Amino acid sequence: MRVRGEPRRTIWLADDGRSVCIIDQTRLPHEFVIEELRGLEDAARAISSMQVRGAPLIGVTAAYGLALAMRDDASDAAIDSACARLIDTRPTAVNLGWALATLRGRLADVGPGRRAETALALAGELAEEDVSLCRAIGLHGAELLAALRTGAEADPLQILTHCNAGWLATVDWGTALAPIYVAHERGMPLHVWVDETRPRRQGASLTAWELREHGIAHTVIVDSAGGHLMRQGRVDVCITGSDRTTASGDVCNKIGTYEKALAARDCGIPFYVALPHSSIDWSLDDGMREIPIEERPGEEVTFVTGLGEDGEIRSLRVVAEGSPVANPAFDVTPARLVTGLITERGICAATREGLLSLYPEPPRVVAVPGGG
Amino acid sequence: MRVRGEPRRTIWLADDGRSVCIIDQTRLPHEFVIEELRGLEDAARAISSMQVRGAPLIGVTAAYGLALAMRDDASDAAIDSACARLIDTRPTAVNLGWALATLRGRLADVGPGRRAETALALAGELAEEDVSLCRAIGLHGAELLAALRTGAEADPLQILTHCNAGWLATVDWGTALAPIYVAHERGMPLHVWVDETRPRRQGASLTAWELREHGIAHTVIVDSAGGHLMRQGRVDVCITGSDRTTASGDVCNKIGTYEKALAARDCGIPFYVALPHSSIDWSLDDGMREIPIEERPGEEVTFVTGLGEDGEIRSLRVVAEGSPVANPAFDVTPARLVTGLITERGICAATREGLLSLYPEPPRVVAVPGGG
Repeated sequence: MRVRGEPRRTIWLADDGRSVCIIDQTRLPHEFVIEELRGLEDAARAISSMQVRGAPLIGVTAAYGLALAMRDDASDAAIDSACARLIDTRPTAVNLGWALATLRGRLADVGPGRRAETALALAGELAEEDVSLCRAIGLHGAELLAALRTGAEADPLQILTHCNAGWLATVDWGTALAPIYVAHERGMPLHVWVDETRPRRQGASLTAWELREHGIAHTVIVDSAGGHLMRQGRVDVCITGSDRTTASGDVCNKIGTYEKALAARDCGIPFYVALPHSSIDWSLDDGMREIPIEERPGEEVTFVTGLGEDGEIRSLRVVAEGSPVANPAFDVTPARLVTGLITERGICAATREGLLSLYPEPPRVVAVPGGG
Repeated sequence: MRVRGEPRRTIWLADDGRSVCIIDQTRLPHEFVIEELRGLEDAARAISSMQVRGAPLIGVTAAYGLALAMRDDASDAAIDSACARLIDTRPTAVNLGWALATLRGRLADVGPGRRAETALALAGELAEEDVSLCRAIGLHGAELLAALRTGAEADPLQILTHCNAGWLATVDWGTALAPIYVAHERGMPLHVWVDETRPRRQGASLTAWELREHGIAHTVIVDSAGGHLMRQGRVDVCITGSDRTTASGDVCNKIGTYEKALAARDCGIPFYVALPHSSIDWSLDDGMREIPIEERPGEEVTFVTGLGEDGEIRSLRVVAEGSPVANPAFDVTPARLVTGLITERGICAATREGLLSLYPEPPRVVAVPGGG
């Protein structure tokens, strides 16, 4: 997608072919900084410090990290230690383990002399595959948005989204935002209500930045405001991403998604979830009972980061010492509140039957929450 | 209530009887600063800068402000100009206009020589009346909390609240928190989930501080987390305040209240609203159509205030320039989602019949949102 008018991805090979470039997402929206990853440690640090985040992007970054490691040492022992180092960075992100397992399997068949080159090519393939999946979600979702437009020709379609399931969470296009980008490309007038998404504020920091850079009309609101706007008739459709969706259609996603889905149901507004097949956990039926919810550090609630008057990115304490905090990172929206799932294969009901209609032979994918 | 073990109110006459003391609420929870108001301008500035906030407390502060003005000039013209100055500070807070009208009426019958003394006495009466109303809400609400306790003797009752409807919003006791204080006084084990309440963060800054100072177990959560905790069975009851409640039981309160009520209903958890009679607007039936919702400055969303590493209270930009924000300050929870109303006269259904059972001859009170 575009940044300052230039097409960008979240991760790419540098011109010299020796290093990998990423956008440092911890500096957004205040600073646009490109960072070069020159070796395994750089890649591991980028993931653990959340310079890159979002399950698909973490997976691709880990793949590139392994490729960079092979440059220095392409022995079997080096593969083992590089994978161990990378998997430790964000243990819950499913794509990380999946990407590393994929590369590892392929590298086993290749002599050490060709491993660096092979790993780099495979990482590039994973990146391209991610782009294709997200683009397909965007195409299906854009048809849906077109069908939802019932107002006057000039009235923008009003979409509400939560957290960041945009191109910054993937290599390009995103999941929940992909339909919006495709619809915008086709000239459809639209406006996005962007939930701030406390505590890490991915909506205000990443989604708003993405949309602004791409020239898409949007407004940032606090998380509590969505239900009120829906009651006022100012939202036509909600779309979020998902970190894990059960075979029965229960959706685990960023904390707060459940309340948006409740408000949408109360106000008669369709609530869609956009996700690639890799986010479906075919082994689970009851999201509330079976999906473990990551409890993240309380500091994410206690401290807020932003831009100081001096132009420096700073941190402030916003909860006094002596007041405990809790920080569950995800919630589970029951399938009954989900109007439909937008996948790379099309749109289906959030039911076992709906999912099987698109995936008659479900792949064995077990995802875990994380990567938000 | 208690601060550092000492009983405190939010506003009181200084020992010398010449000035009025308040707690500067803009410095909480990081600093406990008492400010002396020595004249009309001090009082007006305290209200407009939100050093004091909460409709009941604003009303009492305005009354004291008028009394201070009478010291310098007790002429009819001085009453007019003092009232005009004070009403301008927060034009939407209902208690402000009501308190000033009350004093003004009484001062008209008193000669200028006795106006300062009379006004000071009346302001003190208003403060005492507010304490009585809130204490009565607390007594009725505490009975309710006792009845809701079904777990083991040692299990705390789990209460969720939104924004600050505690003693800081009134002279003492509060509305939504009054039942909690009374129950705590009686030795009931309880724990309060405190919604942060973006954008102004009154939950994290004021409610958490009140509860901590009073020794009541609590945990601060982001606004999005309440629904998830309810689904997990970790909330027994929700209690909030109200800025205006219609004769039919629709509740206007801080933005986000509606989503909590939806989650409570979905999870089968009782949702109560605590309010004095003065928050009932007998002239309205349909809260969503008839109550004007205050749109507050976007800066409240764009900037966050907190404690810097250097111990100074600072402000950070958290939404990038170029991303518009919207900041509706209140929402309306339909009566159908409200289990009951806790008033100074007892608890009733959130219906016209319920309210009339407690107020058979409804006073003519027209409140407006504000004072949050």
